[in-house]
Amino acid sequence: MVRDAERTKRLLLEAAAKEFAQHGIAGARVDRIAASAKVNKAMIYSYFGNKDQLFDTVFSAVVVNSVERVPFDATDLPEYAGRLFDSFEENPDTLRLTNWYQLERPAGAPLAAIVASNKTKLTQLQKAKDAGRLPERYTPVELLALVRAAAMSWFTMTPELGASAPKSRRRRRAVVVDAVRRILAHD
Amino acid sequence: MVRDAERTKRLLLEAAAKEFAQHGIAGARVDRIAASAKVNKAMIYSYFGNKDQLFDTVFSAVVVNSVERVPFDATDLPEYAGRLFDSFEENPDTLRLTNWYQLERPAGAPLAAIVASNKTKLTQLQKAKDAGRLPERYTPVELLALVRAAAMSWFTMTPELGASAPKSRRRRRAVVVDAVRRILAHD
Repeated sequence: MVRDAERTKRLLLEAAAKEFAQHGIAGARVDRIAASAKVNKAMIYSYFGNKDQLFDTVFSAVVVNSVERVPFDATDLPEYAGRLFDSFEENPDTLRLTNWYQLERPAGAPLAAIVASNKTKLTQLQKAKDAGRLPERYTPVELLALVRAAAMSWFTMTPELGASAPKSRRRRRAVVVDAVRRILAHD
Repeated sequence: MVRDAERTKRLLLEAAAKEFAQHGIAGARVDRIAASAKVNKAMIYSYFGNKDQLFDTVFSAVVVNSVERVPFDATDLPEYAGRLFDSFEENPDTLRLTNWYQLERPAGAPLAAIVASNKTKLTQLQKAKDAGRLPERYTPVELLALVRAAAMSWFTMTPELGASAPKSRRRRRAVVVDAVRRILAHD
């Protein structure tokens, strides 16, 4: 019975992740999620609560997964940016969920998974700064903002500009890594 | 009569811009746009076509407006990034519309306003490169991607990280301008 419940939850979360990535929160239909998972709709409410709560559960799992997949290294931020770029390349749904989250849940309660991940990163950045491994001129949050933004360069553009982007994934990654290296160069 | 038609269109486009910025394309309700503009709903279809077409009209106007407000200068990209940052700070709806556009219209026809604006920028970047005003190592589209991404650093983060961002707008702008200056530094 426990195993069945776990399996049902997993199927629902997988179906919900696809539905939310495609349609966002307002656009997602709980009916479609239930049909796609072949699970009775009532189970969604019983396991996860309302649609916003289901989204938060899905997105928290995506964040945890993504943190595990993309190890953070405050002493090698250019390569971290490269790995983040890889992760966006390989998981376009993660990027879409993040964008929907920013557009549709700005007033939601902070998600513990994101708060914890940021805290770890900011602490490591401060340590690397204290050890002289990072330039003095940026605070940890400024470093994180710049590195994330650079890693997202090829994903935050309009499709019109994207059509002119280099076809080579290796080249796009190299541009990201190089830019972060220059941002962090010691004077 | 012509003046009345222009006034009605303007009221509808203003109401539509607010509705789309708030709710996106799928989430927007034509009923609410008509009610907010105090215009009969049938006029929307008659002037602009369906909801996707109305969005494209709204977003094209936003792009044109934004291009006029933020003069591009291929020979001073750090300050251009600063102006772009200012524009996002002062027009959060523009940023939201851009994000909805990327999420909800990726398969839509390219918008002429965006294509034209990109073409002008890429041509100017190539000229500045030819004149030795920009480093050889990046192509025009790579330069534009990096500069845009840096300018968006404070707007592409989760609200959780945003809560730790510097309160000072001047400081956030300075970080953007400094990062672009370093990305472009000659070797």
